[in-house]
Amino acid sequence: MSYAVWGWGAPDEAPTAADLAAVAPVVQEATGVAVQAPEAPRPAPGLPPSRRLAGLPPSLRALASDDPVDRARHGLGRSYRDVVRGLRGDVPHAPDLVLRPRDEADVAAVLDWASEAGAPLVPFGGGTSVVGGVEPVGLDAPVSLDLQRLTGLVEVDAASRAVQLRAGTLGPDAERALRPHGLTLRFYPQSFERSTVGGWVATRAAGHFSTGPVHVDDLVESVRAVTPVGLWESRRLPGSGAGPSPDRALLGSEGTLGVVTSAWLRAQPRPAHRWAATLAAPDLATGAAAVRALVQSGLRPATTRLVDARESALTGTLATGEAALVLGLESLHAPLDHDAATALEVCRDAGLRVVESGAVASGGGRGASAEAWRSTFVRAPYLRESLVLLGVLVETFETAVTWDRLDALVADVTAAVTDALARVCGGGTVTCRLTHAYPDGAAPYFTVTAPARRGAELAQWAEVKAAGAEALAAAGGTITHHHAVGRDHRPWYDAQRPAPFAAALAAGKRALDPAGVLNPGVLLG
Amino acid sequence: MSYAVWGWGAPDEAPTAADLAAVAPVVQEATGVAVQAPEAPRPAPGLPPSRRLAGLPPSLRALASDDPVDRARHGLGRSYRDVVRGLRGDVPHAPDLVLRPRDEADVAAVLDWASEAGAPLVPFGGGTSVVGGVEPVGLDAPVSLDLQRLTGLVEVDAASRAVQLRAGTLGPDAERALRPHGLTLRFYPQSFERSTVGGWVATRAAGHFSTGPVHVDDLVESVRAVTPVGLWESRRLPGSGAGPSPDRALLGSEGTLGVVTSAWLRAQPRPAHRWAATLAAPDLATGAAAVRALVQSGLRPATTRLVDARESALTGTLATGEAALVLGLESLHAPLDHDAATALEVCRDAGLRVVESGAVASGGGRGASAEAWRSTFVRAPYLRESLVLLGVLVETFETAVTWDRLDALVADVTAAVTDALARVCGGGTVTCRLTHAYPDGAAPYFTVTAPARRGAELAQWAEVKAAGAEALAAAGGTITHHHAVGRDHRPWYDAQRPAPFAAALAAGKRALDPAGVLNPGVLLG
Repeated sequence: MSYAVWGWGAPDEAPTAADLAAVAPVVQEATGVAVQAPEAPRPAPGLPPSRRLAGLPPSLRALASDDPVDRARHGLGRSYRDVVRGLRGDVPHAPDLVLRPRDEADVAAVLDWASEAGAPLVPFGGGTSVVGGVEPVGLDAPVSLDLQRLTGLVEVDAASRAVQLRAGTLGPDAERALRPHGLTLRFYPQSFERSTVGGWVATRAAGHFSTGPVHVDDLVESVRAVTPVGLWESRRLPGSGAGPSPDRALLGSEGTLGVVTSAWLRAQPRPAHRWAATLAAPDLATGAAAVRALVQSGLRPATTRLVDARESALTGTLATGEAALVLGLESLHAPLDHDAATALEVCRDAGLRVVESGAVASGGGRGASAEAWRSTFVRAPYLRESLVLLGVLVETFETAVTWDRLDALVADVTAAVTDALARVCGGGTVTCRLTHAYPDGAAPYFTVTAPARRGAELAQWAEVKAAGAEALAAAGGTITHHHAVGRDHRPWYDAQRPAPFAAALAAGKRALDPAGVLNPGVLLG
Repeated sequence: MSYAVWGWGAPDEAPTAADLAAVAPVVQEATGVAVQAPEAPRPAPGLPPSRRLAGLPPSLRALASDDPVDRARHGLGRSYRDVVRGLRGDVPHAPDLVLRPRDEADVAAVLDWASEAGAPLVPFGGGTSVVGGVEPVGLDAPVSLDLQRLTGLVEVDAASRAVQLRAGTLGPDAERALRPHGLTLRFYPQSFERSTVGGWVATRAAGHFSTGPVHVDDLVESVRAVTPVGLWESRRLPGSGAGPSPDRALLGSEGTLGVVTSAWLRAQPRPAHRWAATLAAPDLATGAAAVRALVQSGLRPATTRLVDARESALTGTLATGEAALVLGLESLHAPLDHDAATALEVCRDAGLRVVESGAVASGGGRGASAEAWRSTFVRAPYLRESLVLLGVLVETFETAVTWDRLDALVADVTAAVTDALARVCGGGTVTCRLTHAYPDGAAPYFTVTAPARRGAELAQWAEVKAAGAEALAAAGGTITHHHAVGRDHRPWYDAQRPAPFAAALAAGKRALDPAGVLNPGVLLG
């Protein structure tokens, strides 16, 4: 299947045979999984012709694409199972049609038509969902509503440091547009290159900074969305106590309540000061205790990235067999000397060893080391597809839990997944890092690598994922800290949310979307 | 009418004739309003006998009170119009009955009975609403559901610094319970002495600290509420991305979706370091620019209390005819020297003059000056009732707005209210302070004093309030930053919220409360 359908990168970034040959021994060494002969992507079987195209009103026909590659691309997200299926040309739920509205009026026209025609609509931003958020499963001739034409910076309020961005704006484009204003969103989800402002809002995405504003929720000042019953626009407010927050109702609604068309987000200048340290901890739990002490000390470190010993070795952070804590401080104005000294003292008191530390040079506002790490971070999805082509099962999942339950959750999930891997894959490993830290808890993030049995990967992963999800739910975690619910997390999400809340959400959706066309199967239905 | 019905304090704290005589000249001097002869509270007319008592199941009869004073107390909040009406024995909407559940099972039993009997229920925490939140207007034999028996600390999670408190717990009781654990909620709304945890959650209350966690929203880790269709309990989580936040749906629901019975809140140790300064600004706008620079600098001052020149004189902050900024910094561990120097530099650059500054002694964890101010702050409602007895119209209202619109909003509201006061009261003044500051905006808080025409106060205030509300809405503000919506703010709240959100909220409420018994008229209906 065309790389455009399943790949992370631009068309010319598909891994070549030479790339795979070069990376294979490294992968085998790092993961301990015997790599297999590189798999050649298979051509896609043809798609049936669009059923909806002919019936579209002419005004919408101008927005429509029934190109098979386009449709196939919109039938998959970017989870492990999406990549596996995509490269084999297995796109079981390609939409009937892709519609690309140019503006809000187009979105409203699409909603009117879909409500009338009973056409299920799946809002599509960057298509990077790893939870089945954009895959129209079990729907009758569904339509993918691609927001990629609703792009760009609408307005800047320099006094309030807030910016209005259209929903389809990609991360790098948002940053490019803000740069002349001396501002940054300082929001870098791993999908930064490929995901959109609207997708962030709809899924409660999280950036890579460990504390402070973690989810986009805290950056949102107001949201505009088109619903089947009209425009939803909240007033721009720095804070309010007027009833339940309308913005918080849209945040995380994953396209089920309306189509986000733009948002006002809080921005900020680039930090003037940066400081970073690498510390070694005897194990993850000791490192986690240090992270807890740090965030509870009143410090707000930009980065408290803690990886277990195996991930530490894998990522080249430490080759000592210890867990590693990469600590970063940032400041707009104030020098960081005192905070840095405090942070190191807190870590030493918690039993950590300082490997290196120091101010980070601000070439162009960014330190080289932070830049290198961010580059590795956003490159991870590219690496993953090489692993998939080499027959390695590789996937991640995350949660969040209060500090009192953290160690038990990590132990239980690790044990359950390790056990499932042995059973299902005959081996494999699960590693853990803490990606985000709060005064009252943290977000553990698990990475699984194992030998894939070609053709059986979906069943393999389903069983491993279920084992992990059951264990983390039993240990008090959330089914997702920042990957959203989509279709894949429904069983655990349904069990997690308060039943009366589910009833209210379903009723609210019916009021907004009486025809039930907005992303059916996601969150509800 | 009994002081218990309309007064802020304990029975022995009612202002005496001597108190009033002493305060009268001070009030006259400070407000410029000619005080009137102290008004003697009038006895209440009798209430009709309860219609619902006899029909209560025996299990609920044990929770019921039909005492007239009790019923009258539950028919009023604590707004200016409540105090005026209360002291005159004018309680037009006293509930038919007061029910005081002892536990969640009782709450559920009350909801079952009320849904069956069609009895409107008004959840009642401390009864300090200033927006008609607890006054059962236009309801058929309504019942006040007083949560005062659901009190106390349920559990402490020391590792996560989180505490579970029952809904009826008053502020001081919560602090007393946390003190042995070395924790504080650090949450002090002006109603602190009389308001409850459940009330804070239901109304999105704000504490007096100017930045950081402003609303209780940011302290909430999970909420338990009883709804007519069952228990609503969110998982305790430090953060989550699993669908729209259930907690945020309850926050601000003002008793319309369910009855909050307990909440897990984030707590913290007392700060070890405090620093305070008083600065003078030529006017409020210059002071506001300094506050903006402070919060946008990356500092997170505990206090950025800016009062205009008149309030500065009134409160004795500065006698120089200048606006005053009271600035406070706090820290758990780090000394504040550098932040303090930065803060003063930012203020000087913005054109402010430093009047005094320095570290605040931490006697028992609290500085004397902060303590004195907090005492004045929580005493304000006592002072207000003396003003009312002396024939002074006195009320406040607040909003929040982005920085780009702040100066215009303050000017427009001041002009509109001044004009209304001249027209309605033949004079009077409106002053302004900024109570809370965000990177993208601030919360202006207006205080009105004017000569009251006895017997006409409600009409007077209604006209002045409407003028202020219209002006602030037109200028882009929210109808309430932290006083909630209740019944009084409905016209402006209805205009402010997105129409599709209102439709979803109403549908959600119908799903949870099919009989429509939960606080009808508040937010909805």
